[in-house]
Amino acid sequence: MIRIALDCFGGDHSPEANIDGALLALEKLPDLALILTGDEKLISEKLAGREYDKARVEIADAPEVIGCDETPTMAIKQKKDSSLMRAVELARNDDTVDGIVTVGSTGALIAAATLRIGRIRGVKRPAFCPILPTMKGGIVGVCDSGANVDISLEMLTQFARMGSLYIETVYGIERPRVALLNIGVEETKGDELRKSAYPALSAMEGLNFVGNMEARELLSGDYDLVVTDGFAGNVLIKSTEGACLEMLKKLKRDIYSRTINKIGAFLMRRMFAEEKAFMDYRNYGGSVLLGCKKTVVKGHGSSNDAAVAKCIEQAYLMRKGNLTERIGEAVERAEE
Amino acid sequence: MIRIALDCFGGDHSPEANIDGALLALEKLPDLALILTGDEKLISEKLAGREYDKARVEIADAPEVIGCDETPTMAIKQKKDSSLMRAVELARNDDTVDGIVTVGSTGALIAAATLRIGRIRGVKRPAFCPILPTMKGGIVGVCDSGANVDISLEMLTQFARMGSLYIETVYGIERPRVALLNIGVEETKGDELRKSAYPALSAMEGLNFVGNMEARELLSGDYDLVVTDGFAGNVLIKSTEGACLEMLKKLKRDIYSRTINKIGAFLMRRMFAEEKAFMDYRNYGGSVLLGCKKTVVKGHGSSNDAAVAKCIEQAYLMRKGNLTERIGEAVERAEE
Repeated sequence: MIRIALDCFGGDHSPEANIDGALLALEKLPDLALILTGDEKLISEKLAGREYDKARVEIADAPEVIGCDETPTMAIKQKKDSSLMRAVELARNDDTVDGIVTVGSTGALIAAATLRIGRIRGVKRPAFCPILPTMKGGIVGVCDSGANVDISLEMLTQFARMGSLYIETVYGIERPRVALLNIGVEETKGDELRKSAYPALSAMEGLNFVGNMEARELLSGDYDLVVTDGFAGNVLIKSTEGACLEMLKKLKRDIYSRTINKIGAFLMRRMFAEEKAFMDYRNYGGSVLLGCKKTVVKGHGSSNDAAVAKCIEQAYLMRKGNLTERIGEAVERAEE
Repeated sequence: MIRIALDCFGGDHSPEANIDGALLALEKLPDLALILTGDEKLISEKLAGREYDKARVEIADAPEVIGCDETPTMAIKQKKDSSLMRAVELARNDDTVDGIVTVGSTGALIAAATLRIGRIRGVKRPAFCPILPTMKGGIVGVCDSGANVDISLEMLTQFARMGSLYIETVYGIERPRVALLNIGVEETKGDELRKSAYPALSAMEGLNFVGNMEARELLSGDYDLVVTDGFAGNVLIKSTEGACLEMLKKLKRDIYSRTINKIGAFLMRRMFAEEKAFMDYRNYGGSVLLGCKKTVVKGHGSSNDAAVAKCIEQAYLMRKGNLTERIGEAVERAEE
């Protein structure tokens, strides 16, 4: 049985979406057990009358919630009774708890996971790795995408190692094609960090490093993992999402500006619905925080039930594939 | 009369697009004179039989061309007879030449402009500032977008000053809204550079600093200039362009996959043509290299005649608005 602690509060649609997502995941994965953290009374009320395997669900009472506007360090110090901190403490103290899933505050999660769950031995810094859909129907991960903004070469090579193992484990891609985000494809391009990273990544055993990638190629489908510092990674992810969403918004506005467009769009309504679903990051699961002793998945704050279920499944697959152990071994081998 | 040296070679459609663009610009701007650099025989042939004000056109013979694959420093050393270097040397040596326009190699241009034309007194580094269209029908500049990857706080504040003056001078926007690219809107977000930049930009006299901007807001129309280092700026620009182009490509593929979509798209053909034009960076002019003693504009390698004309007009407006002098004064005042 794989046991995951699910933070039932903190997202835009919590606790309903979180609890519905939990039941969806339980139905899909017969060897999954969940510990729902949050206001016990409220969770019990929401579960009342629902059909699910009660033997696989526990509730851990934690009536407080960490807001997205709170300072992470203050939140984890002062809100020990919050749904997020309860999940984190379960992962820290209970050996049978394999990981946590939350759609709440990112900052608080990074601080809590790093300080309380702790890093895998040898890992310098946990790193965030979200997944985006590519135009060829596949996926691409970006590691790091915001957890670490001032980084060293060693951290960057670890991001490559951890991200590659993650893509392999959860998405079943053998020898993921790993690229270094840079401002040109030539080996000599970039700042000091990138110039030293190119030969370092090339020399890494067992890593399928395919060279530099320019930002415009992110969605091309030619790469499985993009490695970068958290600042550039965050810019890469957010500008890509932003541009796609702004374009869809513009299309919508332009469609409504002329009757002929409305007729055309009506005929194409199935296609447009598919484009919208394709663009919806909720369909691709959450960002995982790689390098912690337990599996950590952070879903988007606007996650609906299906998105929460997807995040739980990610955490489940990471545990199932022994990702934490594999990262530990790889980091240890690299140190030798 | 404003005199601009136009590099007639180097782009994908040169010399035809460059020469046609030159004639378009001459027609639009009666007090513009151009020096066309490149193979004199070829240029003369292309001009033969065309109608234009011959008093405002000179040719400076330079038979060589710098390829995009050549090392910038080698190219500027060894190809003194190239169309680009001839334009640069004219700007360097002839006081009556106000600036240069090229659609050739970016690397060679940056190296040549910095080393041969030189920086405005007090400017630490010239910076690239391209322009993107926003979803509200306006524009937004990004400075720096790739000329400087390892930067200091002083460089960043100069990018803000130069970019703001540029947006004001060429686009007529009073008190441009200047934002700092960051991974969150709070003042405390980001790496060491960003944390020190926030208060520094806030304190700058005459600068309308409006705070941090996340990458997803680039096209929102809420900002006139985004200030950042060349690495993140390059990622921001290229991922935004890449995402928009990939989405248009995907739409096109999806339209052709079903007959009903083809009918819908036929009805919406005017709208789709407008979207395509909206996305075409050639309609927004080139990137300007701010901080050089003379006006420097770099158009996209794929520029057509209209795009080349637009670049010439940008250089013309920069000169007309005394941008170089204004930058020099602002930098001097900041040093006092």
